[in-house]
Amino acid sequence: VRVRVLGVDPGLTRCGLGVVDGRPGRAVMVAVGVVRTPSTSEPGQRLVFLESEVDGWLERYTPDVVAVERVFADVNVASVMTTAHATAVALLTATKRGIPVVFHTPTEVKAAVTGSGRADKRQVAAMVTRILGLDAAPRPADAADALALAICHAWRGAQDARLTTLAEGARR
Amino acid sequence: VRVRVLGVDPGLTRCGLGVVDGRPGRAVMVAVGVVRTPSTSEPGQRLVFLESEVDGWLERYTPDVVAVERVFADVNVASVMTTAHATAVALLTATKRGIPVVFHTPTEVKAAVTGSGRADKRQVAAMVTRILGLDAAPRPADAADALALAICHAWRGAQDARLTTLAEGARR
Repeated sequence: VRVRVLGVDPGLTRCGLGVVDGRPGRAVMVAVGVVRTPSTSEPGQRLVFLESEVDGWLERYTPDVVAVERVFADVNVASVMTTAHATAVALLTATKRGIPVVFHTPTEVKAAVTGSGRADKRQVAAMVTRILGLDAAPRPADAADALALAICHAWRGAQDARLTTLAEGARR
Repeated sequence: VRVRVLGVDPGLTRCGLGVVDGRPGRAVMVAVGVVRTPSTSEPGQRLVFLESEVDGWLERYTPDVVAVERVFADVNVASVMTTAHATAVALLTATKRGIPVVFHTPTEVKAAVTGSGRADKRQVAAMVTRILGLDAAPRPADAADALALAICHAWRGAQDARLTTLAEGARR
């Protein structure tokens, strides 16, 4: 079963967005981009702009699900609040369109695409490039991270669905 | 010059809202309330509900400005992410209505209403009750905190405006 996932690497300065069509072991890139809002803008204006951009992506690509990176409060204290604000915008916008939102930790994403939860950013970008059959690694890193999130969910979702089917089969 | 301020004590479990009409040394309560969203709901649904409630308050009371408590990432790690999400909703909703949003730290708020930045919650509630001439302290604490924020901004804003006027006078 093919699933279309919009991956969101949340941020206000740069918010990575990547759309992937995936099924077990396969993934095709549909779109990738980065939304930037200047730090000199009013905080509220940055959120309004990000909301309109994310909403535009939801309308254009009609993903089945939105996968957002789960950010922890104790990591990178300086930027965690703006990252949380960007996360809230993605969550709110998708929910208003009736699209489910799931969260994956950086460790889950790294493990899904590289096999190791401790892979570095370069490894993740290299595997995203290989999996999607791209000529070059998506730039900036936020774009590659968004695609990695989308791949992670497409594959994990497929696994979960398969496990559910197996479980249901076992119950019969 | 009278200013109408909507104070927001951000949170998802409880979000305090308080509207005050204020001018130097004076403050009148217009409305107070708490928006609650159950922790058992989907995170996105909680944000959508909070947004519609905050937007309803903005429409009903047409504040000149929204004052939100500035939450620091290193305080109360467990709840800081949901608090940040609620903050983003208030910021986004007010900005879309063209209403400016200002932030005040808990220390600023306590100092404004009690004279001490280290006052405890009970002192803040007691002073809010006295300043607004209420029969009893607003409950829960989030409601009192929202009113304290609104008072803080109405008074500080007035001070700032007065200082600006003085500075302009001095330049003439």
